This record gives sequence, structure tokens and C-alpha cells, in this order.
Amino acid sequence: MKLASYKDGSRDGQLVVVSRDLRTAHYASGIAHRLQQALDDWDFYAPQLQDLYDALNADRARHSFDFNPAQCMAPLPRAYQWLSGAAYLSHVALLRLAPGEELPAALKTDPLVFQGASDAFIGPNDDIVVASEAMGIDFSAELAVITGDVKQDTNPEDALDSVRLLMLANPVSLRQLEAAERDKGAGLVQSKPVTAFSPVAITPDELGDAWRGGKVHLALQTSWNGRKVGMCDAGPEMGFHFGQLIAHAAKTRHLRAGTVLGSGTVSNSGAEKHGRMDWPKGYSCIAEKRSMEALQKSKSQTGFMQFGDTVRIEMKGKDGNSLFGAIDQNVASLYQAQTDAVAEPEATA
Amino acid sequence: MKLASYKDGSRDGQLVVVSRDLRTAHYASGIAHRLQQALDDWDFYAPQLQDLYDALNADRARHSFDFNPAQCMAPLPRAYQWLSGAAYLSHVALLRLAPGEELPAALKTDPLVFQGASDAFIGPNDDIVVASEAMGIDFSAELAVITGDVKQDTNPEDALDSVRLLMLANPVSLRQLEAAERDKGAGLVQSKPVTAFSPVAITPDELGDAWRGGKVHLALQTSWNGRKVGMCDAGPEMGFHFGQLIAHAAKTRHLRAGTVLGSGTVSNSGAEKHGRMDWPKGYSCIAEKRSMEALQKSKSQTGFMQFGDTVRIEMKGKDGNSLFGAIDQNVASLYQAQTDAVAEPEATA
Repeated sequence: MKLASYKDGSRDGQLVVVSRDLRTAHYASGIAHRLQQALDDWDFYAPQLQDLYDALNADRARHSFDFNPAQCMAPLPRAYQWLSGAAYLSHVALLRLAPGEELPAALKTDPLVFQGASDAFIGPNDDIVVASEAMGIDFSAELAVITGDVKQDTNPEDALDSVRLLMLANPVSLRQLEAAERDKGAGLVQSKPVTAFSPVAITPDELGDAWRGGKVHLALQTSWNGRKVGMCDAGPEMGFHFGQLIAHAAKTRHLRAGTVLGSGTVSNSGAEKHGRMDWPKGYSCIAEKRSMEALQKSKSQTGFMQFGDTVRIEMKGKDGNSLFGAIDQNVASLYQAQTDAVAEPEATA
Repeated sequence: MKLASYKDGSRDGQLVVVSRDLRTAHYASGIAHRLQQALDDWDFYAPQLQDLYDALNADRARHSFDFNPAQCMAPLPRAYQWLSGAAYLSHVALLRLAPGEELPAALKTDPLVFQGASDAFIGPNDDIVVASEAMGIDFSAELAVITGDVKQDTNPEDALDSVRLLMLANPVSLRQLEAAERDKGAGLVQSKPVTAFSPVAITPDELGDAWRGGKVHLALQTSWNGRKVGMCDAGPEMGFHFGQLIAHAAKTRHLRAGTVLGSGTVSNSGAEKHGRMDWPKGYSCIAEKRSMEALQKSKSQTGFMQFGDTVRIEMKGKDGNSLFGAIDQNVASLYQAQTDAVAEPEATA
């Protein structure tokens, strides 16, 4: 099934069930008001939500309405945990290694997982609001799962069974702040400000056989200012599957229902072509593109996002239909937006 | 006022108001069931909770009962954000510097703040459950605040106004896993498994003039296996006050109501005495003690916590009364506990 949270002025939004084709929706308020409520007691709520979903798909739901992604908050608007993995090793290599340097063996057997900010996820069409372009604004096209409860020190197979829902994610990075935070040995707090999610979260069965071995075997499309820049396959090159990432995070503690865990930037390896490295699948974040340029031309040319730039992230099933709806966001200035808001009443007076 | 969350089998517990002397309590269910609910709309709920608190202190509350800290979850049992600062520079110096090395200037002007796990905080008397003693189990005596909403890019003074409640905290570290996570450049996910909090959270006015300049000017007492090991003053040597720590975290994003932010291990500088470094106020975590030994004797002698060890953390007001109640925990084995649980039905059969 497919679930979303509609904006209603509250911090958690209203849970809605969305049809498979993303055309219609129905408030779930007769079952549960908030997605976290359903996650807290999934075995009780999921079958009821599934019944409503089946009715909606069969056009039997009485109070359905046209689904509007612009009305969506993140499916889980605030979460008790956001863990960001870095499961695609070609991404790790592009961002961390000097030309010619080999990936340390430890990174191939032990995943990188960071704790991130989950108090204010943003919706698929919400602006990315940043104080200054000089901070190095970057997007990242990723997959993410929402889990149920996970036992401390569990194994990857059992961990995989805890996956309740999948989403697309766009964790925003401020690359010019990132190096300083890394050097200082602090967490990535200022440089990883906010994460946007796709309009809907979907249960794994919606993916059919594209969901296997804890990976999603489909391409993730990324467009920047309307130009397609990435079409990376999310499957084979995921170095650690979702069960492995979850088990890594649960090594020393329980994870509670509603934990959101990201895959890391979906990335495919480059190959040498006519004596020059080439990345035919493109890139899922600008930092990768800059590293590719440095490897190809010894110099990064592409700049980061500017105010007014757009990013669009989407994944289509084998039938060509959008699975999660699209993340489609603008970059906006914190202070420009505030000035506008203050100026408005005067303009209308 | 003083607030706690009583265990009731739910994930969020039942909000209770606790008397100033920590002797009696009253369910707040006539006002709000959960602390997060009150934090989401503080201006509405706080005056009502204050009225109940006043009635309880005046012995006018009709359905009061004896307060039992062992019934307590963390005051906020799960939070949308846990940020752990490192505001006491003598702690940073002890844990990060080689003998004779100076603290980098940047660390004196720009605080260290990490994102931590907040999906499953534990109560003041809950066991610290670890799979193996070899992981290097350590406590840390700290202060923490719970904030309201904080605006992106705010200043430290306004940030300080967002402080709603204060607590004591014990973020557990697994020191033998920490270095590897740091070296790998991942977050501290496995090495910072869980955080316990004091029985009650208190509003800043409960501290009187001990709360000034965004710091708590009182001593934090730490006992390990019944032996007092730390009596560190939480005030003057806090290098960044809570408003500065909050503003640092809010530099590039909003923080939402219910954000919990820790001070870092409360630590006082050593002084040279008879040609030898001495730390008369003791220590608030074992890693500090080991660094002190290395500086004094070129060798760390004290080992980390073992199963069955206890840690107690408490802060008393100028009148000698406990302000927050005590964190008082045992270290338990994940697998020993599980074996016991399985064995029990057989023993009673």
C-alpha cells in the first residue's frame, strides 16, 4: 500500500492512503490519524489500512479525492530517528579518495552510518531554505526505509524483516561546511540540515520482484534544473543491503518503530573508455560530479546549487509508472523569503 | 515545576507532575497525557501544569500519590532529536589531546555538537544493557535541556529563551568501539548506544539564581559502585552556555519543540600541585580518569564498567535537596538477562 501525510497545520499531518496509481487518496482518520501511530502498532493498523487501500484501488472508497503531492509533508513528518547510511561504495570512493587511492578494506565490510536530524523532515515540494549560497548547497538522491522495532544485536536477515515502508529521500548537504565539521571531529550537524522525502511511503510488496535481497533493483532518476543528471541503478552496486545497514545500527541498542534509515547517495561506478574515466549513469549529488571532473580534468568545474535552482528525484516501476511520486524542490533564501513575508502586508495595504 | 513520565506499558508513558520535594506526584492526564504533547503547545499547557504543581506543593491536589523514581521512564521517553554537546573544554582536552598538546583555537570558539540516538531513551533506574564488557562501558554525568521551537540561524540569547526544561543525563559510551568509529569517519552510532535521564525534568525557575548565563552553577555528583568519584562544578568551566550550543545546532535549520540537547561531560580543570597534576573535583566519566592516570603515571590503570557495576548521578540545590532525583543504574548483560528471562518459567514450574 501507499501512505502519505497531508498538511493540516499540525506537526504530524493527517495520514492518508493513496491509490497505487497516485491519482486518488482517502483520509485514514477512521483508522489512524498519524503515521507514527500506525507504526507503533503496525500489526493492528496495517491490515485496516490495507483494506482501505484495496477499496481505493477498486474505486470503492466512498470519500476519496484527487491526490495532490503539493499537499504532502514527508510521509513521516518527524521521526524519533534518522540514520543515514553510505551503502554505495562508488559514492564513498568519489567523495573520500584522492585519485588512485584504494578504498580501505574496512569500508567494504563495515558500513558507514551516521545519525541525522529527524525533528523536521520536509515535504516533497517544500523549499530547501538556506541562508547563503556560499554554503555549497547539494542534493542527494537516495532510498530510505522506515522500520518497526529492531532487537539489539540482531542479524541482517531478521533486521530486513523489520522494514515496513520505503521512500525516496533527498538529504540536503552544505558541502562548504562539511569539511570543517569533519576536521573538527564533530558530528555533521550544520552541514546536514534537512531531509526531504517522496510524497508517499510504500510497502515492500509494491515493488514486486524489484525488491530482493534487501535492495531495490530499479533506476533512480535525478534532474537538476530540468536536466536529467542521474539514472543510477539502485540495485547491484549497493554494497550493503538494508538489512545489513539496520543490523549495523542495532549492534549495541534496540531501534524503535519509526526509525528511518537512508541508503546513502545512489551511485554507480565509472569505467575507463578511450583512456578516460566515464560515468555513463551520471550522478545523484553534485559533489560526485565535481569529483568526476577532478578525476577527468584535474579540476572541478560544476558549482553547487543557487537560489531558484530545482531538483527532481523519481523512481519508476517496470511499467513506467511513478512508484513514490516525485521529490521536486526549489532552493530558496532564508532571508529573501523572510523579507518577502514582512513586505507583503505593506504591499496589500 | 517538575515533570516525569510514569511507566504504563506505552511508548511515551503517562505524564505526571511531581512535587518540589520529590515526595508526591499527580497524573497530568486531565491536562495532557504525554510530555511531547505539552511541548508541542507549551504556552497552552504549561500554565495548567503549573497550577497542578502549585496545588501539589500546597498539599491541595486531590489524587496525589507517593512519587517513585523506579516507575519513571526518561521524562521524554522518546524524542525527535538528541544533540550531545561537548561544552566542558577540560573534558575535550582530557579525551582528545596528547600530553603537552594545546587545545586547537577553533574548539574554544566553535562548540562540538553531535547528533545522537533519541528513539529509546531509558529511565533513571533502568539497566544499561550491553552485550560484552569488552566494549569498554562508560558513563557520563551531564546536564541536558529540552527546547521549544528554535528558528534557523538564531542568536545565542534568543536560543536560550527556548529552554523549557532541564534534566540530568547519562549518555552511555562504549569506548572500545569509539576510536574505530572516529577513525572510519562514521558517526558515533554503535559507540553511543543509549542515554538515561533523571526521574524529573524541571523548569529553569526551579534552579533560582543557580541558573544564570545559560549555565547551572551547582555541583554534579557522580558515584561509581557507591564511591563518590566526581563533584564537578557545572557552572564556570562550561565553555559554551546552553544558548550557544542551541544556536550552533540551529545555524542552518530550525529545531523543533522537544529537541533535547546535552552539555557534554561536566568536567573541571586540573591544577599542578607539588609538581604533579591533580584533579581535586574528580571525574564524570571513566575515560577522563584514564587520561588523568596517563598524565600522572604515563599509564591508564582504571578499567571500564563491568556487569553488576552501578553509577549514580545527582545534583543538589543550595538547600541540600535533590533537584532532579537521582540517576541510579546497574550495568547488565544483554545475553545473561535474556537467559534469565527464558529460564524463569521453568524455575517456577
